[in-house]
Amino acid sequence: MADATMDSASRLLHLDDLRIGQRFASSTEAVDERAITEFARQFDPQPFHLDPEAAKLSLFGGLAASGWHTAAITMRLNVRGGLPIAGGIVGLGGELSWPKPTRPGDVLRVESEVVEISPSRSRPDRGTVIVRSETRNQRDQVVQIATMKLLVPRRPPAE
Amino acid sequence: MADATMDSASRLLHLDDLRIGQRFASSTEAVDERAITEFARQFDPQPFHLDPEAAKLSLFGGLAASGWHTAAITMRLNVRGGLPIAGGIVGLGGELSWPKPTRPGDVLRVESEVVEISPSRSRPDRGTVIVRSETRNQRDQVVQIATMKLLVPRRPPAE
Repeated sequence: MADATMDSASRLLHLDDLRIGQRFASSTEAVDERAITEFARQFDPQPFHLDPEAAKLSLFGGLAASGWHTAAITMRLNVRGGLPIAGGIVGLGGELSWPKPTRPGDVLRVESEVVEISPSRSRPDRGTVIVRSETRNQRDQVVQIATMKLLVPRRPPAE
Repeated sequence: MADATMDSASRLLHLDDLRIGQRFASSTEAVDERAITEFARQFDPQPFHLDPEAAKLSLFGGLAASGWHTAAITMRLNVRGGLPIAGGIVGLGGELSWPKPTRPGDVLRVESEVVEISPSRSRPDRGTVIVRSETRNQRDQVVQIATMKLLVPRRPPAE
């Protein structure tokens, strides 16, 4: 995997290649009931994420994916081409909100935008970038907004 | 699962039972290399989360769990008794940071504290609560801080 990353590094973006307002779009991913309940069984075993009948009686009004599942799918979409950062996507933290839940049958995609670029003062080989990633379903409804600070390498001087 | 939640509802906390500064502790969970690489393969397929050798050469200096894996384990620990909220743990969003990565062999636990309580003005049956959850490893190092806003039901008047 390290080699694969290095092989395609020429089209991956360093800090120097990014500009504020730059936008990226991921591919899409369908989320079915089985994926929702499987993630929930592992990491968020609550009735409204596990059981369609119990979920009807909950405040979700039907089966809803764990917000952490939506976050994990968003990461997968960004890693698989949605956010082509050299050195990978290394998050330090950020803000997260889930305006609507992900539902069975949803087809998700991520649209990301660079909102801040800060070269490091102490480390000339890197900097941080704040990226706002909106995860949307097939009806263009936003299911997650993640505004995350990423560690991004600068282009090596030799290149 | 719905019945299990209802059966134990008498010891679960409603908005009216919470106070600022109230603290909760979860059980512990060991995280091994297989769990780290399995989560990464599914949701965050990057060399430093997948391959111990590639990870040595990365800025992590060794295999590190995806931050989203740490977040998902934190949720599981909170759902399994770490945060006994009536009606379940329903997050609207919040802030997340990963001061250190989770490593193979780490034993994680979560300490949570209520930092804000806001009864809804429009919906007398609910409110929101901000909870700060620190996820710590066996050396007491903080691997994640999550400050999340949760939807919490009020105690029904009939009770």
